[in-house]
Amino acid sequence: MAVNLPPLPELAPVAGVRCATVQAGVRYPNRDDLVLFAIDPEAATAAVFTRNRFRAAPVRLAERHLEAGSPRFLLVNTGNANAGTGARGDADALACCEALARAGEVDTSAVLPYSTVVIGEPLAAERIIAAIPGLLATLAANGWARAAGGILTTDTAPKGACRRGIGPRNWTLTGIAKGAGMIRPDMATMLAFIATDAPVPRGVLRQMLGRAVDRSFNRITIDGDTSTNDAVTLVATGRAGGPPIDSADSPEAAPLQTALDELCMELAQAVVRDGEGATRFVTVDVAGGRTGEEALACAYTIAESPLVKTALFAGDPNWGRLLAAIGRSGMDDLDVAGVSIHLDDVLIAERGGVAEGYREEDGARVMAQPEIRIHVDLGRGDARETVWTTDLSYEYVRINAEYRS
Amino acid sequence: MAVNLPPLPELAPVAGVRCATVQAGVRYPNRDDLVLFAIDPEAATAAVFTRNRFRAAPVRLAERHLEAGSPRFLLVNTGNANAGTGARGDADALACCEALARAGEVDTSAVLPYSTVVIGEPLAAERIIAAIPGLLATLAANGWARAAGGILTTDTAPKGACRRGIGPRNWTLTGIAKGAGMIRPDMATMLAFIATDAPVPRGVLRQMLGRAVDRSFNRITIDGDTSTNDAVTLVATGRAGGPPIDSADSPEAAPLQTALDELCMELAQAVVRDGEGATRFVTVDVAGGRTGEEALACAYTIAESPLVKTALFAGDPNWGRLLAAIGRSGMDDLDVAGVSIHLDDVLIAERGGVAEGYREEDGARVMAQPEIRIHVDLGRGDARETVWTTDLSYEYVRINAEYRS
Repeated sequence: MAVNLPPLPELAPVAGVRCATVQAGVRYPNRDDLVLFAIDPEAATAAVFTRNRFRAAPVRLAERHLEAGSPRFLLVNTGNANAGTGARGDADALACCEALARAGEVDTSAVLPYSTVVIGEPLAAERIIAAIPGLLATLAANGWARAAGGILTTDTAPKGACRRGIGPRNWTLTGIAKGAGMIRPDMATMLAFIATDAPVPRGVLRQMLGRAVDRSFNRITIDGDTSTNDAVTLVATGRAGGPPIDSADSPEAAPLQTALDELCMELAQAVVRDGEGATRFVTVDVAGGRTGEEALACAYTIAESPLVKTALFAGDPNWGRLLAAIGRSGMDDLDVAGVSIHLDDVLIAERGGVAEGYREEDGARVMAQPEIRIHVDLGRGDARETVWTTDLSYEYVRINAEYRS
Repeated sequence: MAVNLPPLPELAPVAGVRCATVQAGVRYPNRDDLVLFAIDPEAATAAVFTRNRFRAAPVRLAERHLEAGSPRFLLVNTGNANAGTGARGDADALACCEALARAGEVDTSAVLPYSTVVIGEPLAAERIIAAIPGLLATLAANGWARAAGGILTTDTAPKGACRRGIGPRNWTLTGIAKGAGMIRPDMATMLAFIATDAPVPRGVLRQMLGRAVDRSFNRITIDGDTSTNDAVTLVATGRAGGPPIDSADSPEAAPLQTALDELCMELAQAVVRDGEGATRFVTVDVAGGRTGEEALACAYTIAESPLVKTALFAGDPNWGRLLAAIGRSGMDDLDVAGVSIHLDDVLIAERGGVAEGYREEDGARVMAQPEIRIHVDLGRGDARETVWTTDLSYEYVRINAEYRS
């Protein structure tokens, strides 16, 4: 059901990062479900995690380990989120890290654990631990493509992106991500792993990742449900050589920031394109806000309205539901006469009602496409925000009624 | 699909109020779609309207007329919401009021118009105007049951409630309501008309209605989509005689307030039971909040989570999705260790994970019922709020993908 999701591109290796993927049987047999990234000791790592208050055990532990030390391994399992698992969940996450630390001869705090999928069931830590020797033995620089498949859950296809020849020093930037429901990253269910060979110290890396995530992963929503396990992790190995980037605002940082922004956007949009039950990829663009906050709140209200989403599923240019969503999005003093709505290039509503000269067939033509842009002008300021979302289909209900996340 | 919606009870006449219902052909032929209430000149009327900023033409006009004068007629059409219809919509609403005022020999401001269903299409005002003589000729005290049918849209059955013998003076209280989607009254798509023969001056009536609505209609949600046309109207004719109730806090007011609270709750819950595609009637009860606001926000986040709602549809005791919804409901300093969740009497989660001794079959037994109570204790204060909602089914998607509201 994915909407114009491109096939997995070639994912170039990043010097200083190796990956391995195995079938550990975490939940299901005969599928890749455990991925390991091994990182050079000289690398810097930054990450952003979910803001959901119920944060999974691995999220809490990964955050602690990231603060404490210098990550050498990222250990990622699908099949079980190890969330809502209480003290046992904490112990299981730690046990996996300890086993890997012993086998890999690093400190326990050098292992960051990531888990995803089913909430509330005990993690089969022993199966993960048993798979560690096999993982370590098969680490390879060119393991990204298989890793992209190994982290999936209800995703229908792997998601990855790559940029090469960035800036004058020809840096490489490679990343993979997974969705596909419980998605309103803040951070989201979503996991993404990105690496570059550029030399970026940790503080600068954190700043650059924060900027990129805020414009990409933190602007997508599938169902408004922020997951307990979201994380985006960025590694900079510095193996390309050259002097370190000493500021996120420096000229040296600019091409890397641009590439990182683009890559995060590509991965974030790939997550939306493969959203649970998605039949449309929808850009909701709200301009003319007095503040960015109100423009963003309006964009999210539209993007998460069940009535707007079912109209999108039906291909119905239902501007009445759009007006209703805008009207409840929190602007108490909104002058509805100043609001206009376009579907792609078609003006459908203005001055509180249908636009003069609007023809239903023009709206229907836009809505028949798999990709639609809803542009709202609130007519009260200069702030603008964009979010990306999907429709609400029978398939979304089926997936989430049949599947336990 | 309605969930345990009781059949329409006997709706006792209220002295001083008459109703009539006709087929005006507003949108569809051969169905009741126009209802008129005629009110004694001595009666007091109070109403609450939607807070959506895109308020329909009839809502704006009804509010103005209510402030200006003494309502004598409530004119209600289904089939067209006359919302998002710009200047023409205002003119159409006014034309209907003027025609009725002329025929009924009252001021135009004595007519309150109400419209519901499709947003953004011009109202067939001429059909409504043409039906007015027939309405006036058939006004009758016992017209409530037919009126309950005449205001419906995607509702599957009429909704009404009645209380008799209220307080020492044997007051009567009769009301009808309609849903059934775009429901998160604030106010909501929802219309309700209630009348009593108790003697209640306008100011006191407004206060009593506000209290009742806040505890009932403003605590239900079907899809989180606040409609452009919601209104609840209460008429007090005073025809039962006796001295007027001079304060909402007086001993005389108490039995009427209690009956009004109960009746509003009955109607509000009937709207939820008949929510679009509903297969479950769900009470979400959040206790232990530090403030009412955070308890209410938490209850609404659970009630409107697509993942929780699809789990409810599936009959899946998915406490992980409940924890995830609680965790994103806005309490930045929530201590997850203090949170507990019951499904009916079954403790399913505590201390951030599954409850000790919880057995899946106990949760499944509760979830198999058509009526479910989710009780959350946040463990950080004394505030408590309750909202009522439905699940999210294939049928909700079908109704809203096929039907234009």
